[in-house]
Amino acid sequence: MSRVWNFSAGPAALPESVLRRAAEEMLDWQGKGLSVMEMSHRSPEYTRIFEKTRDDFRKLLNVPDTHDVLFMQGGAVGMNAIVPMNLLQGFEQAAFVNTGAWSKKTTKEFSKYGLARVVLDNANALANTAAACYVPECASLLDRVNGQQMAYLHYCDNETISGVEFNGQIEALAGQLDCPVVADMSSNILSKTLDVTQYGLIYGGAQKNVGPAGVTIVIIDKALLNRALSICPSAFAFGTVAENGSMYNTPPTYSIYIAGLVFEWLIEKGGVPWAQAQAQEKSALLYDTIDNSDLYNCPVRRQDRSRMNVPFTLADEALNSSFLSKAAEHGLVQLKGHKSVGGMRASIYNAMPLEGVKALVDFMRDFEKTEA
Amino acid sequence: MSRVWNFSAGPAALPESVLRRAAEEMLDWQGKGLSVMEMSHRSPEYTRIFEKTRDDFRKLLNVPDTHDVLFMQGGAVGMNAIVPMNLLQGFEQAAFVNTGAWSKKTTKEFSKYGLARVVLDNANALANTAAACYVPECASLLDRVNGQQMAYLHYCDNETISGVEFNGQIEALAGQLDCPVVADMSSNILSKTLDVTQYGLIYGGAQKNVGPAGVTIVIIDKALLNRALSICPSAFAFGTVAENGSMYNTPPTYSIYIAGLVFEWLIEKGGVPWAQAQAQEKSALLYDTIDNSDLYNCPVRRQDRSRMNVPFTLADEALNSSFLSKAAEHGLVQLKGHKSVGGMRASIYNAMPLEGVKALVDFMRDFEKTEA
Repeated sequence: MSRVWNFSAGPAALPESVLRRAAEEMLDWQGKGLSVMEMSHRSPEYTRIFEKTRDDFRKLLNVPDTHDVLFMQGGAVGMNAIVPMNLLQGFEQAAFVNTGAWSKKTTKEFSKYGLARVVLDNANALANTAAACYVPECASLLDRVNGQQMAYLHYCDNETISGVEFNGQIEALAGQLDCPVVADMSSNILSKTLDVTQYGLIYGGAQKNVGPAGVTIVIIDKALLNRALSICPSAFAFGTVAENGSMYNTPPTYSIYIAGLVFEWLIEKGGVPWAQAQAQEKSALLYDTIDNSDLYNCPVRRQDRSRMNVPFTLADEALNSSFLSKAAEHGLVQLKGHKSVGGMRASIYNAMPLEGVKALVDFMRDFEKTEA
Repeated sequence: MSRVWNFSAGPAALPESVLRRAAEEMLDWQGKGLSVMEMSHRSPEYTRIFEKTRDDFRKLLNVPDTHDVLFMQGGAVGMNAIVPMNLLQGFEQAAFVNTGAWSKKTTKEFSKYGLARVVLDNANALANTAAACYVPECASLLDRVNGQQMAYLHYCDNETISGVEFNGQIEALAGQLDCPVVADMSSNILSKTLDVTQYGLIYGGAQKNVGPAGVTIVIIDKALLNRALSICPSAFAFGTVAENGSMYNTPPTYSIYIAGLVFEWLIEKGGVPWAQAQAQEKSALLYDTIDNSDLYNCPVRRQDRSRMNVPFTLADEALNSSFLSKAAEHGLVQLKGHKSVGGMRASIYNAMPLEGVKALVDFMRDFEKTEA
């Protein structure tokens, strides 16, 4: 067996040791004679797995007692409706920062439930040029949001398609805003330290930095648990889910177990500070390779470049298919950029080791020398 | 390693051969060098897995071209809200047949979106006596439903807690009803042949007869795809999900893969007719053992007894804990009844072999002889 270096934007690579342990435990979890997949979600065995997973996650992000951690379903796209249905009681509008395809999608879905106020926008992120791919200046948010009776301010901390990432700008302002901050961290959660107290709500689909697709993690300020509209489905109502310890309906038990193995792996490695240092080193290596070449180009403004998703183009588009096929021959897969922006994209989440990024940059340099 | 006989009501036992194959393929699916869990849902490899899974499911239930098959999230509890949000456009009410805890829960959640008309009810299923646990006479449905402008008629084909199962009564009437039939088949789908053309919508959480928790299968008449309320979340709108081939948001990819392995296993075994014959033989063996004993009793009316979930009580409740602990010593686990009804419950879905049920009845007879 030869494992590839998998640069998929999600579902994405998982630590090999996690997969190995999952395979070993598949038929017989810790001598109990059954798979985790076969366990009742209310059994003592599964309760142990679930509680350790939740507690490890809390520990990794230093989630304070003021906040609940919920395991839900539907992914970030589901959350685009679930969040307004849960937080709009008593409000008519919310504020949105649009920095790319994902935040725009969130804003659009919100309009089913209330008035979406776009308070900051980087114009046309999909143009994918340096003029379009950036994080706008956030200081003006205070004037645009405060006093406006916003239910919340929503932003997407890392735009997976265009590769634009915030670097604490909104977290730093949160204390001065008169509404809670809601952050979509689907693609960069657990890759940097956070001050969770500054957020009303953080959510993320698991399939990038956490585990398999099908589980959504929610960190929510307990003060926001009872602001649901009457139309909010019980299975997706934060208050109901919290009261029932994420077991109001049957949770995606096996996916949560895999997430738990990922958390154990991350704790052993050194936790979120380790992941943050790794992300810095890996992304710097890749961006340096791009910036020091004549063939490759990254359209994102330097200080706003994502440490998770590195989009780049080749100066000669005619070389794209040769780049992809030769990369695959070297065991480097899933490098094609999102169809809406073209070019290439290397997603380098926590589970991608430095070794994998080194293999990629070696290939890129070699390709430039021999093919371009 | 010694595998137990797992009688959990769900998440439930899976075929050992499926788990074995999942373990073998965990790190390297068919020589591609990565786990199914790590595959982009849009990759050619995963597309193959997904399409084969969907097509095998269609084949198993002879799903006609008039109906779409969708893979969604949120389970049956989520569907209690998702179904009305999808089918109420132009209607104010729907009809409900209440035969136990699950159908009652469905009716209650519906009330958030419209007027729930309970057209048949077996009084107090939770009383768990022969007088309460039965399928009511269905012929009167025609008078109670037709001409009433119902959006649909909902019922639960198998009540997992009280062990009450329909036997085609509503399917037989469907052609004479003036609204579509919606069936919750979470706990008995793929255990009997169906005439899918008679249903507007069939849905089921996977964690009983299909695969791991976290995936919900929907079979829907295409004529019903565009009746969603404006508040219906895009990620849960049947029309949107169908248009996007169940990929509007990232589906629970690994759980769908496991479901696909279960479908392959079932096809090899002989398909749904095989499962139906097995269910008949296994449940008859267990009910006969109960009926021929002085210690055990099943409260459900004979002709309405579930072939999937067999609830029974011990004449002396003081023996309950000894029964459970001695059963566990014999590798027979998860036999405790639901907390709302007490006693015991043996869930014997497709993946429970006859051998497991034989082991259970041998133990039950032995326990009666030696302990009662």
